[in-house]
Amino acid sequence: MNVTVSRKAHFNAAHRLYRPDWDANQNEQVFGKCSNPYFHGHNYELIVSVTGPIDPQTGYVMDMKVLKDLIKEHVEDAFDHKNLNEQVPEFKNLNPTAENIVVVIHQKLKPHLTSDQALEVTLYETPRNFVSFKG
Amino acid sequence: MNVTVSRKAHFNAAHRLYRPDWDANQNEQVFGKCSNPYFHGHNYELIVSVTGPIDPQTGYVMDMKVLKDLIKEHVEDAFDHKNLNEQVPEFKNLNPTAENIVVVIHQKLKPHLTSDQALEVTLYETPRNFVSFKG
Amino acid sequence: MNVTVSRKAHFNAAHRLYRPDWDANQNEQVFGKCSNPYFHGHNYELIVSVTGPIDPQTGYVMDMKVLKDLIKEHVEDAFDHKNLNEQVPEFKNLNPTAENIVVVIHQKLKPHLTSDQALEVTLYETPRNFVSFKG
Amino acid sequence: MNVTVSRKAHFNAAHRLYRPDWDANQNEQVFGKCSNPYFHGHNYELIVSVTGPIDPQTGYVMDMKVLKDLIKEHVEDAFDHKNLNEQVPEFKNLNPTAENIVVVIHQKLKPHLTSDQALEVTLYETPRNFVSFKG
Amino acid sequence: MNVTVSRKAHFNAAHRLYRPDWDANQNEQVFGKCSNPYFHGHNYELIVSVTGPIDPQTGYVMDMKVLKDLIKEHVEDAFDHKNLNEQVPEFKNLNPTAENIVVVIHQKLKPHLTSDQALEVTLYETPRNFVSFKG
Amino acid sequence: MNVTVSRKAHFNAAHRLYRPDWDANQNEQVFGKCSNPYFHGHNYELIVSVTGPIDPQTGYVMDMKVLKDLIKEHVEDAFDHKNLNEQVPEFKNLNPTAENIVVVIHQKLKPHLTSDQALEVTLYETPRNFVSFKG
Repeated sequence: MNVTVSRKAHFNAAHRLYRPDWDANQNEQVFGKCSNPYFHGHNYELIVSVTGPIDPQTGYVMDMKVLKDLIKEHVEDAFDHKNLNEQVPEFKNLNPTAENIVVVIHQKLKPHLTSDQALEVTLYETPRNFVSFKG
Repeated sequence: MNVTVSRKAHFNAAHRLYRPDWDANQNEQVFGKCSNPYFHGHNYELIVSVTGPIDPQTGYVMDMKVLKDLIKEHVEDAFDHKNLNEQVPEFKNLNPTAENIVVVIHQKLKPHLTSDQALEVTLYETPRNFVSFKG
Repeated sequence: MNVTVSRKAHFNAAHRLYRPDWDANQNEQVFGKCSNPYFHGHNYELIVSVTGPIDPQTGYVMDMKVLKDLIKEHVEDAFDHKNLNEQVPEFKNLNPTAENIVVVIHQKLKPHLTSDQALEVTLYETPRNFVSFKG
Repeated sequence: MNVTVSRKAHFNAAHRLYRPDWDANQNEQVFGKCSNPYFHGHNYELIVSVTGPIDPQTGYVMDMKVLKDLIKEHVEDAFDHKNLNEQVPEFKNLNPTAENIVVVIHQKLKPHLTSDQALEVTLYETPRNFVSFKG
Repeated sequence: MNVTVSRKAHFNAAHRLYRPDWDANQNEQVFGKCSNPYFHGHNYELIVSVTGPIDPQTGYVMDMKVLKDLIKEHVEDAFDHKNLNEQVPEFKNLNPTAENIVVVIHQKLKPHLTSDQALEVTLYETPRNFVSFKG
Repeated sequence: MNVTVSRKAHFNAAHRLYRPDWDANQNEQVFGKCSNPYFHGHNYELIVSVTGPIDPQTGYVMDMKVLKDLIKEHVEDAFDHKNLNEQVPEFKNLNPTAENIVVVIHQKLKPHLTSDQALEVTLYETPRNFVSFKG
């Protein structure tokens, strides 16, 4: 009897979309104003969802305080008020599109769950654009 | 050709998390301030989703008025402005975590759907914490 | 490694629920005030979700600008500030319930995606009632 | 010591913007697609705010149940699932712009408040456009 | 040149509406199900707004981190996961209606602002009912 | 008989808080992680509110299409996907705090209104922090 528990969190960051192996023209053509070399930024809203059995002792799939702390340690402390391109190692060689960010967050959180817990991560880049990844 | 129809509803309730077979210390250690013996409470926001074929006569999966009334009769009237631990029979011997509440709501609504309709229930305990159950 | 990208959009429209082969009484009995012959209307909020592999060149499942333009051309321009029953050909002989509208939107958008992209469409008829369709 | 209490409500309606003393061309030029002769519609979200002293007996400015019932009787029952131009007497000779609707709602509710209670009405025509009126 | 800065916060609490000098009948008649002797509860959403001149050194009306900490110390730590009637001294002899709660919060925060800063407090008891107080 | 009409808009931007006449230490001490020299960013949500008389010809305080276009020309085109410190002239010598941004937006829009229209601008820097300015 699997239940999904979800926790919302958020972080603010600057980024730009570009590939260092493309020239400015090509970056501009593919990524438009998202490729602005001076960066722009977002309030990223994050939903982390863990699906698994209910622990009969506690009635929890997972203590939400533990989930909140995992998100804080592995996502918020690493990304909040940062420049993703310049200051977050995972994006040194990876274009920080919403799609790539959500995959990176999934990879950072997955090892901290048990083997019978499935993980889905949803990331709002703006209130109108969002992505999700189930692994 | 299955479509999912969803209806939002809400109820306000008091609860506390604790197990009567644990002493105060253990309840406090596991459930923290959620175990406050004087209770605390929430505005529970509920989303009930029914997936099934579209009735070719009406163009409905299910009349939303019927779904609204089902939720009112079986959930809102039973839980709203109540103390879940003290006044709702399902939680007499079941810790009213969000996970257990969502399973109870699913069990109360499922018998009122047809056999070709699947049910998912989502429950927001706070704007940042929510759970869902598909049965 | 499939990721889902979603884009929100919206349109305002008038409609009524009724079947021309039923008399006024039967329409009123089944569809209630939604069958008002003078029409009523909604702000329809739309979420279009595309699931597919990340393009390793761009880091995109799909350029959100392209998705936004597809929605504008095939949904917003066709439905916005229109009377669905009277002015939208798809509903000439189809009752414009939320269920039927979401299926029509799915059918209009699906041909514009690639074969390895799955489509889900979610439509809020009101903030409390919404439907979704995966095809 | 004045406190403001506010209650949200909503109704769905069809309308069009036009003046019968203007020809179709002029209506189209001024009101654009809002003048569509087949009507379009909205989910109107309403906030009714009453400012006044706290009753020392109850701790209420006004019983929210009473305010909810006033809104239901004078606004929701009169406007919900209606065509404002065709079926609501106040707009027989008044263009149902959001501005005119909010003034009409204010005029309908004001007589039911006491003389030491001030009224403000806010009306969302869409999630992005809203109006308010203090009388 | 006064600007208003606002910060959202929240707390969960149990309460009941009643007057100890009224009997159960009168409490039930006036406060309805809000007077349930076993309590019910809410997710209170709080908006604290401070209006004052911009400090030319910092460009701040007030450091939002300071405002956040004031709210945490004086409101969240005092009210969150508490039973307002039983565990919060201000409501020992004051009916915890939303109106009275918003006045109490205003009184707790006001002394921590400077004399040229005005304070408004808004409190959502549910997503549909809210109150505000300017002092 | 004055009515207020409001329009929501948004832009994404990068910024940092700092004063060039302070050293890195002092900037860090006052502005904390908001002073990150690599910048961070936000989805700024904007509400522009115009209060004035209803034009008896149109029933409008102001054509919302005109207001939408004013915001696009003077705010969105100037700020969206930009680095406020580096690419927006108004912040060359002005710290781009939310307070200063909202004053700048007010100054840019005010000249385009008539003398009997009052302007209020509200700016959400995050879903929890927002500012407003009436001039």
